[in-house]
Amino acid sequence: MPYFDSASSAPLHPVARQALVAALDEGWADPARLYREGRRARLLLDAAREAAAEVVGCRPDELVFTPSGTRAVHTGMAGTLAGRRRVGGHLVVSAVEHSSVLHAAQTHEAEGGSVTEVPVERTGAVAVDSFAAALRPDTALACLQSANHEVGTEQPVAGAAEVCRAAGVPLLVDAAQSLPWGPVPEGWSLLAASAHKWGGPAGVGLLAVRKGVRFAPQGAVDERESGRSAGFENIPAIVAAAASLRAVRAEAEEEGRRLRVLVDRIRRRVARLVPDVEVVGDAERRLPHLVTFSCLYVDGEVLLHELDRAGFSVSSGSSCTSSTLTPSHVLSAMGVLSEGNVRVSLPPGTTAADVNRFLDVLPAAVAGVRERLGVPSAGAADTVPVSDALVVDALGMRCPQPVIELAKTIGGVPVGGTVTVLSDDEVARLDIPAWCAMRGQEYLGESPAAGGVAYRVRRLV
Amino acid sequence: MPYFDSASSAPLHPVARQALVAALDEGWADPARLYREGRRARLLLDAAREAAAEVVGCRPDELVFTPSGTRAVHTGMAGTLAGRRRVGGHLVVSAVEHSSVLHAAQTHEAEGGSVTEVPVERTGAVAVDSFAAALRPDTALACLQSANHEVGTEQPVAGAAEVCRAAGVPLLVDAAQSLPWGPVPEGWSLLAASAHKWGGPAGVGLLAVRKGVRFAPQGAVDERESGRSAGFENIPAIVAAAASLRAVRAEAEEEGRRLRVLVDRIRRRVARLVPDVEVVGDAERRLPHLVTFSCLYVDGEVLLHELDRAGFSVSSGSSCTSSTLTPSHVLSAMGVLSEGNVRVSLPPGTTAADVNRFLDVLPAAVAGVRERLGVPSAGAADTVPVSDALVVDALGMRCPQPVIELAKTIGGVPVGGTVTVLSDDEVARLDIPAWCAMRGQEYLGESPAAGGVAYRVRRLV
Repeated sequence: MPYFDSASSAPLHPVARQALVAALDEGWADPARLYREGRRARLLLDAAREAAAEVVGCRPDELVFTPSGTRAVHTGMAGTLAGRRRVGGHLVVSAVEHSSVLHAAQTHEAEGGSVTEVPVERTGAVAVDSFAAALRPDTALACLQSANHEVGTEQPVAGAAEVCRAAGVPLLVDAAQSLPWGPVPEGWSLLAASAHKWGGPAGVGLLAVRKGVRFAPQGAVDERESGRSAGFENIPAIVAAAASLRAVRAEAEEEGRRLRVLVDRIRRRVARLVPDVEVVGDAERRLPHLVTFSCLYVDGEVLLHELDRAGFSVSSGSSCTSSTLTPSHVLSAMGVLSEGNVRVSLPPGTTAADVNRFLDVLPAAVAGVRERLGVPSAGAADTVPVSDALVVDALGMRCPQPVIELAKTIGGVPVGGTVTVLSDDEVARLDIPAWCAMRGQEYLGESPAAGGVAYRVRRLV
Repeated sequence: MPYFDSASSAPLHPVARQALVAALDEGWADPARLYREGRRARLLLDAAREAAAEVVGCRPDELVFTPSGTRAVHTGMAGTLAGRRRVGGHLVVSAVEHSSVLHAAQTHEAEGGSVTEVPVERTGAVAVDSFAAALRPDTALACLQSANHEVGTEQPVAGAAEVCRAAGVPLLVDAAQSLPWGPVPEGWSLLAASAHKWGGPAGVGLLAVRKGVRFAPQGAVDERESGRSAGFENIPAIVAAAASLRAVRAEAEEEGRRLRVLVDRIRRRVARLVPDVEVVGDAERRLPHLVTFSCLYVDGEVLLHELDRAGFSVSSGSSCTSSTLTPSHVLSAMGVLSEGNVRVSLPPGTTAADVNRFLDVLPAAVAGVRERLGVPSAGAADTVPVSDALVVDALGMRCPQPVIELAKTIGGVPVGGTVTVLSDDEVARLDIPAWCAMRGQEYLGESPAAGGVAYRVRRLV
C-alpha cells in the first residue's frame, strides 16, 4: 500500500529502528550522572551530537536536540528575538513558512513585536530582492525555509543569507524538508530540522545556533542541552535520529535522482491525464520527491478519501481537509488554485510501479468526484446567454461549489457580459481568480456584499 | 550490576519496550491525517490517552502528553499563572520541589511575579498550616509535589488541596515520583508526571488540567494536544508510556511492599554500620523504594566513585557532585547534613541479595574515603586544649574539609570554649550547624568575615 506523504512524516528508516532498539538498552539513564549507566548515556548523546553536527555543518557545541522540529523553530525564534531585543522588535518571515514559524511570528506580534511577511512568486519562491527590502534597521531576525513543505519549491537561501549578512540580521533556516536531501547553503545563523521528516523517530528536533548569535532562551530552562532545551534527554531517539540522518544522506544523491524522475513523470502525466488541473510549484528548483497539483471542481477531502480507498495516502492543502475552513496559506500566498489539492511526497524506496498505479487511479478518481458534484461539461458555449449580467447566490456553499456555480452560469451571459458570485466562503477569494486564469476569463475584483463578498467576472471566451 | 538510582531514571520496563517496538510500525504517521496510516496513529494516541487518564484519575480530554515531565511542569505552571493573571501574580511552592518547579518559579519572578517558598520540617514535609498561611488573595497558583524526589518523604497533598480549595487557588501536584506507586490524593487541579521515572521511555511527560482551571498556554503553540503541547506527537513513546504505567501500577502494591522492607533494612543497618551518619527523610510516610543518608566527613563525589567501582549506581545531593557547588536545595531546606550524601532508589525487581551486598560494601567505602581525607578519630577529648578561642582558616577549602578542620580543632578548646571557622564554601552554612547537632556541640551563629563567613561553635562535650 503506497504511502505518498513522507513530507508529513516519513516511515521509520531501518537504520533508525535498529539504532533506537539498541539504544533502549544503553541510553535510558541520566547522562548527567557519574555512574556507569550515566556515562554510557552521555557517550551516546555526545556521539549523536557529533554525527548530527557533521551532517548539518556546524560545531557540536552549536547544536542542541529539542523534542520536535516545531519546538526547535519556536525555541530558535523566541531565543533570538529576545537576545536581540535591543536591536528592535521586527521579524521577517516568508509568507510560505511552515506553520511553526508563523505561529511563533503570531506570538511575537501578540507580545508587541512587528512582523513582515515577504510575498512569494507564483512558483512559491521568494525573490531575494523582496526579502532584502523587508529588512530594516530594527529587524531582530529573518526566517526562510530551505524548501517549501507543500509545493517543494526551493528558496534562495544563499541569496537571502547574503542580504541578511549585509544587513547584520541573523537568518533562521527551517531546513525540515531539505536536510535529508543535502546540505543547506552556507550563511545561515540558525538552523532547525525534524527527525521524523527524514525517517528518524518522532520526538527529536534539532536546533543549531552559530556562535556569535545573541541568544536568550525564553521560558523556564534547566541545565540540559546547554540551557536551550529543558527536560530529560530522549537519548535512544536522539541516537536513532543521528544514525538515520547519516544514512539517508549517504543515500540521498542516488535516491534523489531516482525520485526526481518519478516526480517529473507525475508532473507531466497529471497535466495530460486530468482535465482542468494546475500543477504548482517550481518544476526545476524543487525537492526531488514532492509534487503538488490542484483539480478544478473537486472537493479535496472527497478526493483524498477516494485515493485512500484505492490504497494511496496523500495530503492536501484544500480548505475542506483542514479544520479551519481556510485553504493552505502556501497556496494562497502563491495565488494558485486550492480546490482539489493533492500533495504527493514519495518516501525513499517508492517504485516506478507504485507511481504508475497512482497515475492509473487518479484520473478516474477525479472524474468520479466531479460527477458526483454535478460539474458542468466543459462547453459553456453550448448554453444560451440569457442576460448581460447574472448574479450567482453561493452564500452558504463551501469549496468547490461556488466555482462550480460560476462555471455553470458563465454561459448564461454573452462574451463581454459579467457574472457576480456572492460567497461567504473564504476560499472563493483564491479560487475564483484562479478559475478565471485557468479558463481565460477576466477577474474584475471583489466588493463587500450583504452576507459575504461579491466576486465579479467578465466572460471573454 | 545493581542500579540503585531509579528516582533519576528507571530502566525501561519490559512492557514499555514491547509496546514501543510494536508502535514503531503502527504509530509513525501524522495522527492529524485522514488516510489509514494517520487514522491508525490517531487510534493509538487516543487509546494511550484513555489508559493514562484512567491511571491518573481524570478525563481523557483533561490530559495531554508533553515531551518530558519538566515540560509538563513548565507548561502547567506558565499556563495557569497566565490564565489567572487577573487574580494576581503570586505563586506558592514548597521549598523542596523538583528543580523544574523552582526554575519555572524563578522565571515567574524574573517576569515580575512574586513567589513564596513554604519551608519544610526536618523530615522534608511541609506542614499544611504553613502551606495555608502562604496563600493570599492574589495567589494564582500553588505547587506541591506528591513525594520528594531526593528523600522520599510524602507531602500532605490532601490537606494542601483542601486549603487551596477553600482559598480558591488551583493546586499543581508534581507526581513524578509517586505516580507509579499509587493514586495521587484527590483535590488537585493540575498534575504532572514523567514516563521515564516509571520505566516508560524518555520523551513523554503528562499534564492533566482539570476542567474549569483557567489556563492560557504560553509561547507559540499549534493545534496538537489541545493547543497545550506543540509539535508532532511522539506516538510510539506515548503508547509505551501508557502501557508501562498501567503495568507498573498493577505491580505496585506487591512490589512496593517488598521494596519497603528492603529500604527499612537499609535505614536500620546504615545507621548501625556507618559511624557519624544521618539517615534523612520521614521513616514512615515515604516512597517505598527510596532512602537517603549523609555521612559526616565524606566527600560525596569520591564516595559515589567508590560505590560505582564496587558496582553500585547511586546519586547524591552533596555539593561536590553538582556543577553549582551548592548542596541540594532539598537537604538545605530540611536543615540536614549534606556532605557525604547518598540517595538509594531501588528499581522494581531489586533483590534482597543486591541490598545486602550494598550494605556489605558501604561501611568500608565510607571508611576509606574518611581515611584518605585525614578525618580525626572520634575522641576530640584526647587533644589537649591550648586556648579558650581558636580560629580555623578554612578559606578556599571545599566540603567536607571545613567540617573536618572544625572536628580536628574542637579538642583544642576546653568545654565552654569556642571555635570560629572561616569559610567561603556555601555548604558550611548547612553542614557546620548539622555537625553541631550530630556531635552535641552548640552552634552560635554566623557573621560576615573578610573573604567569607565566620561560623562560631561552642564546645559542650
